[in-house]
Amino acid sequence: MSQILQEVLSANQAYVENFGDKGALPLPPSRQFAILTCMDARLDPAKYAGLAEGDTHVIRNAGGRASDDAIRSLVISYKLLGTKEWFVIHHTDCGMQLFTDQTIRKLLASSLKTSSIDENGWHDSGEGEGSNGAEFIDWLTFPDLAESVVIDVRRIRNHPLVPKEIPIYGFIYDVKTGKLIEVPEATAIGKASV
Amino acid sequence: MSQILQEVLSANQAYVENFGDKGALPLPPSRQFAILTCMDARLDPAKYAGLAEGDTHVIRNAGGRASDDAIRSLVISYKLLGTKEWFVIHHTDCGMQLFTDQTIRKLLASSLKTSSIDENGWHDSGEGEGSNGAEFIDWLTFPDLAESVVIDVRRIRNHPLVPKEIPIYGFIYDVKTGKLIEVPEATAIGKASV
Repeated sequence: MSQILQEVLSANQAYVENFGDKGALPLPPSRQFAILTCMDARLDPAKYAGLAEGDTHVIRNAGGRASDDAIRSLVISYKLLGTKEWFVIHHTDCGMQLFTDQTIRKLLASSLKTSSIDENGWHDSGEGEGSNGAEFIDWLTFPDLAESVVIDVRRIRNHPLVPKEIPIYGFIYDVKTGKLIEVPEATAIGKASV
Repeated sequence: MSQILQEVLSANQAYVENFGDKGALPLPPSRQFAILTCMDARLDPAKYAGLAEGDTHVIRNAGGRASDDAIRSLVISYKLLGTKEWFVIHHTDCGMQLFTDQTIRKLLASSLKTSSIDENGWHDSGEGEGSNGAEFIDWLTFPDLAESVVIDVRRIRNHPLVPKEIPIYGFIYDVKTGKLIEVPEATAIGKASV
């Protein structure tokens, strides 16, 4: 068993021993809101936003982007489980701002030469780009942080399955201080309109 | 300002005041692993798996499913930021098991009659289904919990952009006890193969 796996199971055992009455928590989030944020290891939404188990849906991906899958999750959060306010929270020093799609494609093109991916019917032509499928994926990198929050709030606001009565707040988390900084332009776009 | 927004900003202020030296944490996850799990409010991966800020990437969506967007995030986690082991963790009493795609489509078809979505060029024909786009989305519900973990680990394992040397562990989180329970069939499929 890997060291990481051992550590996770050991930490989980300690959590189970102090689980208390959390087994009685209901499925719907008691505080009726949801957060979409980045997978970044430095971010702990429960800590930076003050969430206890049972409070809030937390959706995370690379960048905290409003991908189709994030919107699937938000719509389920609202429609099946009753959330009424949503936050989009990107952060400073994000990998999605530091890298470009082109960088990612090149890295994958070269690294996958050493992986044997032939079983799946994919082939690496040797020189990299154009051969492994990475060029068909939108990696959702972004050049400007505040603008990325605006773009994502707007995408959610305009989605046909998102009800207009849900306000969407746009924020940046500062990894140097832990502070949430509002992006007023995003929140203005995300304002409920009913 | 909404009560929720006030509460989040107030909790964040307390977090900032006790932020300590976390501003010095580097971008790459120090413990070099990633967790894909559900957005469910009852789950706190940092607590149930023993994670501190800076340790681990956490990807979350409705169900903890291996969607294209989750795989995008995992590939970035590995290739740009160096994670070497991945966990897929679904959980008991999951909304994605309690509901079916058909339920979600029907709920959306009826609720959106009361939303004005015409601005976006979408129209509700009155009787619901077939009119709002919900029927074109795979909501990623699942009938069997352990099987959903197996399916997702297999999908990640077989993805052409995922290197074979990364082990993928499959688990179920029990919301009644807080315990992580391995799905051996999933972990066997997710085993590194180099």
